Amino acid sequence: MSHAVMSIPQLDAFLARDFPQVFTADSLYTIVSLGYRECVMRCRFDERHLRPGGTISGPTMMTLADVGLYVAILASVGPVAMAVTTNLNINFLRKPAPRDLIAETKLMRLGRRLAVGEVAIYSEGDAEMVAHVTGTYAIPQERSDG
Amino acid sequence: MSHAVMSIPQLDAFLARDFPQVFTADSLYTIVSLGYRECVMRCRFDERHLRPGGTISGPTMMTLADVGLYVAILASVGPVAMAVTTNLNINFLRKPAPRDLIAETKLMRLGRRLAVGEVAIYSEGDAEMVAHVTGTYAIPQERSDG
Amino acid sequence: MSHAVMSIPQLDAFLARDFPQVFTADSLYTIVSLGYRECVMRCRFDERHLRPGGTISGPTMMTLADVGLYVAILASVGPVAMAVTTNLNINFLRKPAPRDLIAETKLMRLGRRLAVGEVAIYSEGDAEMVAHVTGTYAIPQERSDG
Amino acid sequence: MSHAVMSIPQLDAFLARDFPQVFTADSLYTIVSLGYRECVMRCRFDERHLRPGGTISGPTMMTLADVGLYVAILASVGPVAMAVTTNLNINFLRKPAPRDLIAETKLMRLGRRLAVGEVAIYSEGDAEMVAHVTGTYAIPQERSDG
Repeated sequence: MSHAVMSIPQLDAFLARDFPQVFTADSLYTIVSLGYRECVMRCRFDERHLRPGGTISGPTMMTLADVGLYVAILASVGPVAMAVTTNLNINFLRKPAPRDLIAETKLMRLGRRLAVGEVAIYSEGDAEMVAHVTGTYAIPQERSDG
Repeated sequence: MSHAVMSIPQLDAFLARDFPQVFTADSLYTIVSLGYRECVMRCRFDERHLRPGGTISGPTMMTLADVGLYVAILASVGPVAMAVTTNLNINFLRKPAPRDLIAETKLMRLGRRLAVGEVAIYSEGDAEMVAHVTGTYAIPQERSDG
Repeated sequence: MSHAVMSIPQLDAFLARDFPQVFTADSLYTIVSLGYRECVMRCRFDERHLRPGGTISGPTMMTLADVGLYVAILASVGPVAMAVTTNLNINFLRKPAPRDLIAETKLMRLGRRLAVGEVAIYSEGDAEMVAHVTGTYAIPQERSDG
Repeated sequence: MSHAVMSIPQLDAFLARDFPQVFTADSLYTIVSLGYRECVMRCRFDERHLRPGGTISGPTMMTLADVGLYVAILASVGPVAMAVTTNLNINFLRKPAPRDLIAETKLMRLGRRLAVGEVAIYSEGDAEMVAHVTGTYAIPQERSDG
């Protein structure tokens, strides 16, 4: 991985302040690694995510992907509190196992105004993807220096 | 609206049993009306949904749309616990107001195996859409008579 | 329909100059009507579009939708030769009849930089949609005055 | 690459018979390589594809991706004339160079009824992707043994 412009502790602190409703002390979502235009996130397995049949809910995976894209952008351009998702497309490929999810995000384009990335979501330890996401964020023109 | 094959109380009971993690007693999501191949859902405004700037989070809207599609399918074909989302595409159009969201779902296709629908999401009382979703559900072949 | 800022003959002339490979004298695609943030296009039935089983090809419908979105933008903001598609999502709903296609485009958002619209495609004379498209165009910042 | 169940000449013959309007003797689209659940296609640069500014049109790239997904399915399950696209999502990332396009397709899921894949499109010789596509095909239940 190339270098990220923020460290994991810096990003954790930013997210905890910026998304207190998602990144609480006992958040399900944690950053595993960061690079330039990429990151790996983990979503801890938790009963609250279950759907009938014991599977993890779609919205849990959509949230994980949305956060992964946001983290990969922050890791690459620094703190931009107001970057907003404009489009997200998800294909659910197979039923996830009752285990943690791992989301590998790569930005395919990081422009001045738009960032477009893809997220591959796996059940930890499985080689076959459980869901695939592409998403676009609009980046505000004046960046805070956080 | 044409007739739904389930009433709102029947659907509420089904969802409470089937999605206890989403449809709790104090659920944010409620069914406003049902018809054949369509429904209207409300998502109650709640601090937990906020993003920086006081706006409602993307995952809240994705969840609302996913639930709307599921409810419109159940309303049309009866209780099918194992229908699963295969694809969901969302365009975020404008920042929602700090008010309840209203989601109008219509199924554009209700086949034997696949249902495809669209969801228009509004801030209550505003004419301009805040988000637009299209999604596909795979319907299992043997239906429970639940 | 509210008023378009270009007439059909003006748009035809612009497209013929700008997209000679699509809008030839015997083009398959014609503008039926224009309004502010909306248009209706027709795609003439032609053997070249056929897929096995006598149906119209997917790429024909994707092209029709892409052109419809572009025309609706031009009709609303005037000639912007360099507006480019950034995202297009299509759901194919049913096999089109061997007849002309009608595409109804509405822009759900027309911002300064991004326009997002949806396109409903029908076989002429059928009430059920054959395909549904959402798409995003990026609008360049300095607009030609054509 | 793992083994494909059809060779390139077999696939060429099948496509020429099945899609005479796309795979003519002077077709723009050719198969570069095949494997199980994957293929590489080339789209020859041609004036007919140009958009204003000398760039390759969006519909050309959508057609290339749609064909790539179809070829990857045929290469994996054998001749299935009636497989049809149900969803296609494309993100246009950067302006392609006036050169041939190379499309790398991988199926992320090859189920009995649905195949889901992604296509990375490059200008030949460039490392940065020009467009990214995900798509779903429905596979008919009775397969011809062609």
